[in-house]
Amino acid sequence: MINPHPDAAAVAEALLRFPACLIATHVNPEGDAIGSMLALALALEEHGVQVTCYDRDGVPENNRFLPTADRVVTALPAALPPCIVIVDADRLERADLTPEQFPDAQLFVRVDHHVSREPDLGPALVSTRAAATGELVFALLPSLGATLTPEIATCLQTALMVDTGRFSYTNTTPDTLHIAAELLAAGADVPAIVDNIWGSMPYAALRLQGAALSALQHSADGRVAWAVLRHADFLAAEATPEDTEGIIDLVRVTRGAEVALLFSEKRGTVRVSLRSAGHVDVAALARRFGGGGHVKAAGITFDGPLDYAIADVLRAVDEALTTS
Amino acid sequence: MINPHPDAAAVAEALLRFPACLIATHVNPEGDAIGSMLALALALEEHGVQVTCYDRDGVPENNRFLPTADRVVTALPAALPPCIVIVDADRLERADLTPEQFPDAQLFVRVDHHVSREPDLGPALVSTRAAATGELVFALLPSLGATLTPEIATCLQTALMVDTGRFSYTNTTPDTLHIAAELLAAGADVPAIVDNIWGSMPYAALRLQGAALSALQHSADGRVAWAVLRHADFLAAEATPEDTEGIIDLVRVTRGAEVALLFSEKRGTVRVSLRSAGHVDVAALARRFGGGGHVKAAGITFDGPLDYAIADVLRAVDEALTTS
Repeated sequence: MINPHPDAAAVAEALLRFPACLIATHVNPEGDAIGSMLALALALEEHGVQVTCYDRDGVPENNRFLPTADRVVTALPAALPPCIVIVDADRLERADLTPEQFPDAQLFVRVDHHVSREPDLGPALVSTRAAATGELVFALLPSLGATLTPEIATCLQTALMVDTGRFSYTNTTPDTLHIAAELLAAGADVPAIVDNIWGSMPYAALRLQGAALSALQHSADGRVAWAVLRHADFLAAEATPEDTEGIIDLVRVTRGAEVALLFSEKRGTVRVSLRSAGHVDVAALARRFGGGGHVKAAGITFDGPLDYAIADVLRAVDEALTTS
Repeated sequence: MINPHPDAAAVAEALLRFPACLIATHVNPEGDAIGSMLALALALEEHGVQVTCYDRDGVPENNRFLPTADRVVTALPAALPPCIVIVDADRLERADLTPEQFPDAQLFVRVDHHVSREPDLGPALVSTRAAATGELVFALLPSLGATLTPEIATCLQTALMVDTGRFSYTNTTPDTLHIAAELLAAGADVPAIVDNIWGSMPYAALRLQGAALSALQHSADGRVAWAVLRHADFLAAEATPEDTEGIIDLVRVTRGAEVALLFSEKRGTVRVSLRSAGHVDVAALARRFGGGGHVKAAGITFDGPLDYAIADVLRAVDEALTTS
C-alpha cells in the first residue's frame, strides 16, 4: 500500500559495500534529522557496518530519549570512514561540513526530502513529496534487509511526527499515515515521543502561560489580541523569561485576531512579540520601533515603561490595520 | 490491511431496512460524537434514508465547520422515525433520552467504542479497541454500500483526530492510522479540522484556560497536578462549561505529573476530569465516586460543594498512587 521508491535498492546496495560510514545531519537538528540519522545507523549496524553519527550541534534535549541518541558526536573522528552519508539536508554544507574534509571518501550518499539545486555527489534517495526524511529511511529498510525493530520504529515515528506536526500539516500524505501505522505496529514508543516532544512542560511555564491568557485582551472589533506579563506574574509563577517561549502562539490562536501581541517585562526591558494572521506586515511595524523579524512574526525590545510600550505599539497596530 | 468488524454487515443490513432514522449522540458532544453522527447520516442518505440528527446540547462551535453540521437538532421531532441509533455512547440515557420516549420504535442500534455493562436494545457495532467511534462508522461504510465522499472523510477524520489527540494518545492503533490514511486519500479536509479544532479558540475559552493554568497546583512530590475552575472564573472569562474542553490536557502536560485533574463548577454540579500518565487506573478511581471512563481518562460528576469534591478526590488519588 506504501509506494516503493525506485532508488532505494541502488542506494542500499551502495551503502552496504563499505564496512564503515559516517552519517551527518544539518546544524540545529530536530526530530526528523536526529531520528532519521539514528534509524539509518541502527539499520546499517544490523549488517555489522561501523557507523559514526555526527551533528555539529548535538542532540537537542527533547530528542535525547531516542534510542542510541547518546552516540551522536559533535566533532569529526580522527579516522574518517570511506562512506559519507548526509541525511535530511541537500548537501554537506548544511551540516557545516565540506566534501574537501573527506579527501579519502569513496562514496557520498544523500537521503533527504528537501529541494536541491546542485547535483548530488553520489547515489541519492530523495523525494520532495516525502513529509519527512524518515519516510525515505523507512523505504530503504527492505533493500537494506534490515529488521524494523522497536528502536528503529521509535526513531522514524519521531521523524514523521515532528515534521508533520503530529500528522496535522499539509505535507502529510496517505503514505505518511500508512508508514506511521507500520511503525506503530513495529513497536514505536509513541507515548515517549509525545511526552518528550510535546507532553511535558515545567510547572512554572504552565502557570506563566496561565497568567498571560487569563488576562488576554482584545480590541473592540476583535482584530487585535494581546497579553501582558508583568514582573509580578513572573514572581507569582516562579517563572523565568525563558518560560515565555510559545506563549505568543497561544495568543495567536484567539479566534478572529489578525494581529497577536505579547508584552513581557524581561530583565528590566519590555519585550514585544508580534504575530500576523492577516495582511499586516509585523516586521515593518516592528522596524518603526527598532525591532525586526518576518512578515508574520516579529519582535521589539523597549527600554521605556511597560504601559508606554503597550500604548505605542497598539496605536501603531491600529494604524496598520486601517491602512492594510 | 484494516481489520473488518464481524458485526458490520448485520448492523448495516438492519439500518437499511428502514426509510427513516434518528441518530442521537451523547450530551456535551465533541468531535467523535458529532463527526461519527454526521458521517453515518451522510452514508445512510446515499441510500435515500431520511435522517434526523439529534443532540441535546447541539454542535459545539469548533465542530460547526463539519459538513451538514447545521442540520443537528436539539429537540426531538414531532414525528419519530422507526429506527433509533445511538452513536459514541453505550445507551440512550447518555443522550439524555430514554427508550420509553420511542414507544413505536422498531429498531434500536448502537455504534460505539465505550465499555457498557447493560445489554444493548438491538444490533450493535461496538469495539472498545477502536480509538474513536469514527473507526466503527468507517467499518460500516462498505456494508452500507456507501461511497467515502470528501464530506464523510472530513467528519470521520475529525472523529479520529479528536479522540486520539492527533494520533498521540495510546488508544491510537495501526488500524487507526491506516483508516486515517484512507480518509486523507478520500479528501478529508485536515487543514480545516486542525484550524477549527486546535488553531482557533474563542477569546472566552482562552481566558478560561488561563484562569485554570494560572492557579495550577501540584502535590509536594509533583506526582499530582490539578486545576480548579470556580463559578467566578467562568464569569470573569465570560466562558461557558463548553469552554473547559481541552483544559485537562494542558494540566496533564505538567512535567512529572502522573495524575492530572481538572475540577470545574458546571451548571450547579462539580465536574472532575482525570487523566493518568502512569500506572493509576483513573476509571477505577472515578467509579468509586459514581463516575467512569477509561484507564487513562475518566470523569466524575458531584453534587456536593467544590471544596469537598477536591478534598475527597485528591485523597483517593493519593491512596491510588501509594498502592499502585
